[in-house]
Amino acid sequence: MRDVSIIGVGETKFGTLGESLRELIAEAGNKALKDSGIDRKEIESLYFGNYCGDRFVKQGHSSSLAALATGLKYIPTIRTETACSSSSGAFKEAVLGVASGAYDIVMVLGAEKMTDVDTFEATDILAMAGDREFEGVQGLTFPGMFALMAQVYSKKYGIKMEDFRKQLSSVAVKNHRNGYHNPFAHMRKIITLEEAMDSRMVAYPLNLFDCSLISDGAAAAILCPSDIATDYSEDPVDVIGFGHSTDILPLHLREDLSRSRATTIASEKAYKMAGIGPGDIDFTEVHDCFTINELISLEGLGFFDNGKAGEASLNEKTTVDGSIPVNPSGGLKSKGHPVGATGVGQIVESVMQLRGVVEKERRVEDAEVCLVHNIGGSAVTCFVHILRRR
Amino acid sequence: MRDVSIIGVGETKFGTLGESLRELIAEAGNKALKDSGIDRKEIESLYFGNYCGDRFVKQGHSSSLAALATGLKYIPTIRTETACSSSSGAFKEAVLGVASGAYDIVMVLGAEKMTDVDTFEATDILAMAGDREFEGVQGLTFPGMFALMAQVYSKKYGIKMEDFRKQLSSVAVKNHRNGYHNPFAHMRKIITLEEAMDSRMVAYPLNLFDCSLISDGAAAAILCPSDIATDYSEDPVDVIGFGHSTDILPLHLREDLSRSRATTIASEKAYKMAGIGPGDIDFTEVHDCFTINELISLEGLGFFDNGKAGEASLNEKTTVDGSIPVNPSGGLKSKGHPVGATGVGQIVESVMQLRGVVEKERRVEDAEVCLVHNIGGSAVTCFVHILRRR
Repeated sequence: MRDVSIIGVGETKFGTLGESLRELIAEAGNKALKDSGIDRKEIESLYFGNYCGDRFVKQGHSSSLAALATGLKYIPTIRTETACSSSSGAFKEAVLGVASGAYDIVMVLGAEKMTDVDTFEATDILAMAGDREFEGVQGLTFPGMFALMAQVYSKKYGIKMEDFRKQLSSVAVKNHRNGYHNPFAHMRKIITLEEAMDSRMVAYPLNLFDCSLISDGAAAAILCPSDIATDYSEDPVDVIGFGHSTDILPLHLREDLSRSRATTIASEKAYKMAGIGPGDIDFTEVHDCFTINELISLEGLGFFDNGKAGEASLNEKTTVDGSIPVNPSGGLKSKGHPVGATGVGQIVESVMQLRGVVEKERRVEDAEVCLVHNIGGSAVTCFVHILRRR
Repeated sequence: MRDVSIIGVGETKFGTLGESLRELIAEAGNKALKDSGIDRKEIESLYFGNYCGDRFVKQGHSSSLAALATGLKYIPTIRTETACSSSSGAFKEAVLGVASGAYDIVMVLGAEKMTDVDTFEATDILAMAGDREFEGVQGLTFPGMFALMAQVYSKKYGIKMEDFRKQLSSVAVKNHRNGYHNPFAHMRKIITLEEAMDSRMVAYPLNLFDCSLISDGAAAAILCPSDIATDYSEDPVDVIGFGHSTDILPLHLREDLSRSRATTIASEKAYKMAGIGPGDIDFTEVHDCFTINELISLEGLGFFDNGKAGEASLNEKTTVDGSIPVNPSGGLKSKGHPVGATGVGQIVESVMQLRGVVEKERRVEDAEVCLVHNIGGSAVTCFVHILRRR
């Protein structure tokens, strides 16, 4: 396989936006093209991640819409869908497309327009990422699924719920603080631990500030073989490892709801490919759809022992100047979660961090290597990518 | 890139079936595993094509359902979607996955469960594969889109509508005759030219028998590097060429509705990779969602001059013993069109043809090389694969 690098990135602001799906795609794609300095005619293939334009805006076959919106004609285009990790999947398949030798210059896009439907409809659309026949028809939606995980977790590790609630809330506080300084973030609002803990209950023990946002947004990246990356970019970022795994879809068939086995497997593959371990990572973007999942993910990725990530979060080990900065972008919690855009959005933010050009308050100084983690569904499909600046 | 071969195939019957999406997937996947003789633990990755489980059965994130249904645990899984060519896209990305060296043994699946919704809902779901903002909201659905193409075509080539209707109907008659002999086909019904021409109008000039079917079904194939294919299979089929292109999504922006530019570009790439031309192809499966599209596709693939495919069809050049047998499976017209399954279904049928094991009445004797063509949307996304038996 050929080595692959990122030579251009761009994203829209995440939020409740007036732009349509096609306008969001156009903005992100054009920003990435401009950032790379590449003419759109050089793009040989487009991989597009989108979770459910089919129901959010009644647009299927959206890879061809993405090509239209970005002015790409007659090239190979494909949509990938793995729920909230849809564009992480696009990124990974695009890496394989370049690694295989099939393409040199490839665009990856992710987009979702979620706010044209009401919250109940959005919740039902998201619930389709679970097992419809075993979970959806029982009325189990995602806040409920992650609440079950949180309950199993606190019981397994003997953490009193009051203490655990504080640990979970510390994740929200930290991510909101980072997101406050991110001009692309949806909810730029600093919150206190007390505010987080006192917010209204959604699904016990998760309350309002434990939940990520329903957002619109799009993000794009341009890839090429590493050996020609400096022909296009002064500061390419290399994809030095990736992993991809799928846990068992319905919760009732899993061995242990307090862990993400897909995260462990995907990250082990990525670390092995990169020839490094968790101790070599300077910062990480992880999937914090609910605060509990940031904790479970950090343990699956090997940053903390099982049952210890909550305490570490409360003790500020995961802040921008902590031992392992987590979600300096603000994460899904504050930056926002336009599901199909989230994965490439994490990549865009990570590249900007590695370039050292993000806002000082959320910058990880001198970062060289980062890990990007995303999941689809109830921690089912997992993608891990490890990036390194030159 | 490594060369890639097919070492196992399986499909369900296509039709209005009692089985659920997960049951269809399980049947096709297990048949392909059995056909290959491979244990499911050897499968390293799963690529799953599905158009719109999101609306047909309210199941998104269906790659993880496909893994569950086939007993594949913790491996990389991804769903691809490009409308009616969704699983052709899965097949192509799986080929790249093996070609890149990322995986050795890969399963490709395609499935769709369409008949749980009524015909009006199905038509609306399919219409989302067009440009929602420019076509869908105007009430333009797929019969109308292809009817427009048929009108442009007949006008451009000066074919009187009465003669053209006969040419179109000859496609239906031929595909129904082939499908009658295919035990996997949805509508096993021989029709006469008169019956086809006299059936009720759907969208002028296309009438009932010009339209393909709304079907349930699933299909699967197993791939590996060509250099180890005989370790697994006595009769591997090699993927010797592929091409993939995307036309402009909405009809009003295209140069010429009488041609499929994506088909031309994709097939030129595939022929070049295979080092052969149309004259070397022993039979072809092409996307006949509407009879007009079989004609346009055959011209785009280089089998007939522009404007001549209809006459060739009427003169029986495309029958099983014609100069270029087209859709010996019965095509989407008679075998059926469970959209997400159609692409891999074409591959399954082609492999069975190349093995020489299909029913005598629809068998292409001594076939060595075939071309498989599929499109998504109004001839927008196009995949071409060229297969050769050893």
